[in-house]
This record gives sequence, structure tokens and C-alpha cells, in this order.
Amino acid sequence: MTETDVTHLPFADLVDLLKTIFIRHGVSDHNATILAENCAGCERDGSTSHGVFRMAGYVSSLKSGWVDGKAVPQVEDVAPAFVRVDAKGGFAQPAFCAAKPLVLDKVKQNGVAVLAIRGSHHFSALWPDVEPFAEQGYVALSVVNSMSCVVPHGGKTPVFGTNPLAFASPRAGAAPFVFDQASSAIAHGDVQIAALAGHDLKPGMGVDSDGQPTTDPKAILNGGALLPFGGHKGNSIALMVEILSAALTGGNFSGEFDWSGHKGAQTPFTGQFILVIDPQCGGNNAFAERVAGICNLVLEAGQERLPGERRHKNRAKAEKEGIPLSQETLEKLKALSEG
Amino acid sequence: MTETDVTHLPFADLVDLLKTIFIRHGVSDHNATILAENCAGCERDGSTSHGVFRMAGYVSSLKSGWVDGKAVPQVEDVAPAFVRVDAKGGFAQPAFCAAKPLVLDKVKQNGVAVLAIRGSHHFSALWPDVEPFAEQGYVALSVVNSMSCVVPHGGKTPVFGTNPLAFASPRAGAAPFVFDQASSAIAHGDVQIAALAGHDLKPGMGVDSDGQPTTDPKAILNGGALLPFGGHKGNSIALMVEILSAALTGGNFSGEFDWSGHKGAQTPFTGQFILVIDPQCGGNNAFAERVAGICNLVLEAGQERLPGERRHKNRAKAEKEGIPLSQETLEKLKALSEG
Repeated sequence: MTETDVTHLPFADLVDLLKTIFIRHGVSDHNATILAENCAGCERDGSTSHGVFRMAGYVSSLKSGWVDGKAVPQVEDVAPAFVRVDAKGGFAQPAFCAAKPLVLDKVKQNGVAVLAIRGSHHFSALWPDVEPFAEQGYVALSVVNSMSCVVPHGGKTPVFGTNPLAFASPRAGAAPFVFDQASSAIAHGDVQIAALAGHDLKPGMGVDSDGQPTTDPKAILNGGALLPFGGHKGNSIALMVEILSAALTGGNFSGEFDWSGHKGAQTPFTGQFILVIDPQCGGNNAFAERVAGICNLVLEAGQERLPGERRHKNRAKAEKEGIPLSQETLEKLKALSEG
Repeated sequence: MTETDVTHLPFADLVDLLKTIFIRHGVSDHNATILAENCAGCERDGSTSHGVFRMAGYVSSLKSGWVDGKAVPQVEDVAPAFVRVDAKGGFAQPAFCAAKPLVLDKVKQNGVAVLAIRGSHHFSALWPDVEPFAEQGYVALSVVNSMSCVVPHGGKTPVFGTNPLAFASPRAGAAPFVFDQASSAIAHGDVQIAALAGHDLKPGMGVDSDGQPTTDPKAILNGGALLPFGGHKGNSIALMVEILSAALTGGNFSGEFDWSGHKGAQTPFTGQFILVIDPQCGGNNAFAERVAGICNLVLEAGQERLPGERRHKNRAKAEKEGIPLSQETLEKLKALSEG
């Protein structure tokens, strides 16, 4: 982006623009606010693969009738430390927001709480779901399954989604420690970028349409699939994500939903698992200081940066200067808000 | 092992022999039973790196005065779904056993429960801690940190232990689905085996004493260190394990304890985190059937076997034929029981 080509939009203005797009395409006002803040937050943090780049996919899925933008989630208080939500075919974020006050009550009361979301579409990053808990002093972990595009370790046909795992913890004197990582070896977006650039991938990223290992990004995209990260160990993480996000919640596995009747559908219809822990119940009252201590140790040992660090820097910059958007992107968003 | 060289010992007999060794070296009768059953269970399952092979290390640590074999753990009922245990410088397993009935009560009552163990030595596999929960119908996850021998991704000095994560889930019509995996790229034992055999390792397993990547197992063993599995993603798992096992519990980080005054000490003095979930609170009553379903899908997709499968086969065989032990191993164990 050249300087002249870029507009810096305040966060609230980007939220308004995105909200208009969601409402224009059949999302309720309440749900549109939640989704717009989530998407604008990703863009603000430089988490651009889940930022405004995704709006076309949101719109396409809404137009196809695959996802219900007006869904009213049903919160179920199942046990003293367990909340369940039926997202009713809507997005996961409104379901999550509907249950969050009860989850916070339960973790304060009991020391730990689980939130199991089913019948939900998750089309964003996971860190926006866990990081706010850490800002409030809690440890949070979440996993979500998606749509089958990852073959099991040693396998030939896709079973898993990219199945991210996100974790957030308070950290004294700094933004929370947060990571949000796919259990696939590489993101689909990065395979597309390599294909466009004509670059080969490193070994271990994916397989071709015969299930054979390949470093050719085009072979992965044309009927091939991704591999789990870290061999059989990442594979077990991916399987754990399916169990927690789908088997435990009552949602679909990544390969289970059928969107063939909804041309343009892009949002995976699965489930999501969230765990929240009150570290004040642990054995050490200086929990956040201890987390800061171990984070400092890994940086002193030579790790380049902590996950989330770049995001928090981008956020601080965007809060001062606004969120940078190219003229082309702004025009696309305006077109979506009108058409 | 040649046929004539092997004795097949019934599980109870191996437990008795190991118990004698523990008691001979200052472990209380109660704690000795727990440790002997744990260690014999590893041997029975063919999890031999945590089986009787470890007895010399147990004895060495006990002799050094580093670990208290007579420790009486103190269970603290912190919150409706949160149990804390101070292992009082003893092994983690007796602390775990002391808290387990309360943890089971809490998960039944609340849908989820956390157990935070501190001041504990864990010198065994993690699967024996989680698998019994799955046999009782619960989902369980546990992590434990150990002693610093793993450099952070991109780093030069060790910070993490091998920091395993274990997960267990009921599975209909079969033994539970269980995995127990180090967050290091390779086990220390496998580096030792490669060094003895004169084989190079695959890239990405470890660094030399200057923190430079190496495939030479001897360079890793002589002042070098291991790497996390799966690059920066496994690294984040290793850091999460430190946070949950130590910061949250009040135990030591992997690089924090000082055993220099205890010659022969081998057991890491840290903490352990256990999470137990009641899947009956989830959205699907056929949870164990759903887990069986996803496990079948990965096998149909071509994954060779599920983690834990080989162990369960070994167990079934050992339950019929007894646990195979070489004459040499038996003699070593008898020597430990006497000296």
C-alpha cells in the first residue's frame, strides 16, 4: 500500500461500516454488532486473514442461506460449572456472548467453567474469544473445528479442519500471553500465496490428490489436503479438537456437514469448546507475575518474540493512528454495504 | 530377549517386588503401593521407558534425600470445582491419589473440575493419571513440567522440560482414546539410543552446546538440548504446560529447582495440572459413540493406528501371559530390593 492509497479508519468507524454490511445481508442488529467488532478487531490487530478480507465470505455464506444471521442462541445452564449453548445455526460469536456472563459467574463461583457451543458457524480467529478473559484475570483455552481439509498423519483423505487451539493467560505488566494456532502445518491462505508466487513449500505441509506428500502448493489446492503440524503429535491435537468441539458439544465433526445445497456457503457448521480457569484458586497468588517470569525466560533464552506480541503492537498503533485500509479494500467494503 | 532368558511375572508379583524396593529405600507403605502399581502398569503396557527401567532412578533420587518417600500430601478444597494439593516434596502420584475422590465428587457435581498439584516429583508417564478417568466415563487432560532440557523455538538455552500433555476420552466399544506426548521433538532416551548406534537424527530434534541446530545425538547429549516438536506451535504448547503446571499450581518451573546439593537426584520437582470433564453435560448423550466415530474416521482415512492402541494390546497380552522381564532385569530389581 502506498501512503496516498491508504485511509486510516478509527475502530468505531470500521465497526459501523462492517455492521452495515452484516445488516444489509440479513444479520440482526444485535448479532451484527458482535460480528463487526470481532472482524474489525482482527483487522486492527493486523490479524488480516481474519479481518475485512473475510467479509466477502461472510456475505457469500449469508446469501446462500447456509448460516442464519438472525439466530437467537439458546443458553442452557447444565451444571454449576458447565454452560451449553445451541447457536441455532447462527454464528458462534453471538452464542458465545449470550453465554459469557453466566460463564464468568460460574468461574468466579467454582474456580473453573466450561462453555460448550453447538450448531454454530465460526469464521474468525479464536484469540478474540480467549484474550478478554485473560484481561479480566482468568486463564482461558478454546478449540474449534472447521471443515475437513487436513489428512490424519499417515492418512490419505481429509478428516480434520484446521482446528485451532487458542490459549490466553494474564501476564503482569504486559498484555496477556495469548496464542492461537491451527493444528494444520500451514494455513490455507499461505498455500494460496505460495501457489500464486510459484514457490514450493517446505516438506510436511500437505499431500496431493492421491494422498502422497508434496511440496507443490498447486497440488495441495487441486484436490490435495493439508497435513497436521508436528507429525503424529499435532495429529493427536487435531483429533482432541474434534472430540472437544464436536463430540463433547453435540456439534458436527469437520467432515460431517453438508452444504452442497447452499451455493456460496463458506462458513463451517460445527461446535466450539471454551474452558475458563480462575488462577486465584491455584497455589500461588502472584500468578500473573509468574507468567511474566516464564515469558521473560523464553525471551532471554533467545526466542524472537512471544505469540500475540506483533498483534498487540499493531493494536497500539491502530489505536493512535486508525486502522490502515487501502482504497481498493474500502471500495470493496462499500460495495458490499450496498449490494 | 531369548525365550529361555525371559520370566513372565503376574502383575501382582511385579507390584510386590517394586513395592519392596520402594519401601527398602524409605518410601511409606501407602506411597510404595501407589508407585509400584504405577511403575508396574507402565511395564505391563510396554511403556518401558517409564517401567522398571526407571527403578534405578527412583532409588537414586530417594537415596539422595531429594524426594520424600514418606510425604503425606495435603489436600485443599479451594472452590466447588477446584482442588489443590501440596505434595510436600513427595511424588505426584500419592498427591494425585489423595485428591482423586474429591475431584470425582466435584466433577460429578459441577460438570468439570481442576486438580492443581504442587511441590511434587513426577517421574512416570502421564497416561496412568488420565486413562482411569476415561474408563469411568470422564474426559481428562493433564500436563506436567519437568527439568529444563528443551530450548525455546529459536532460542539457545534450555527453559522447558519435556513437558508432556496427556488426554483421555471414553470410546464406545473399545479402550479409551488416550495420548500422552512430550512437547519436545524427541525423547531423551531416543537421543541416547541414536548416540549408541552411531546414527544421525532427523533435523529439528535438538541443538548443540552453542544453541546451533544439530543432527548429531552426541552434540545434543554433551551440553546441547532438545527442541520443541512442531516448531513455534509445539513451543507454545511447552510454554502453556509451564504456565498450567507451575504458575497456576504454585510449583516450580522446569529450570527453577536446585538439586545440586543432592547427588544422584533424578526426579524433577515441579507441579502438575489435571482437568476432568463430565461429557454427560455436553450436547450429545452418545458422547462415547461419537468419539468412536471420529476415531474410526481417522483409521479409515489411513492413519496407521491410534495412540495408546499398542499399549492396550500389550496389556491384554500381559494379563494373559504375565509381564515379560529378562533375567538381567529381574536380577537388577532383586539387587535394588536388597541394597
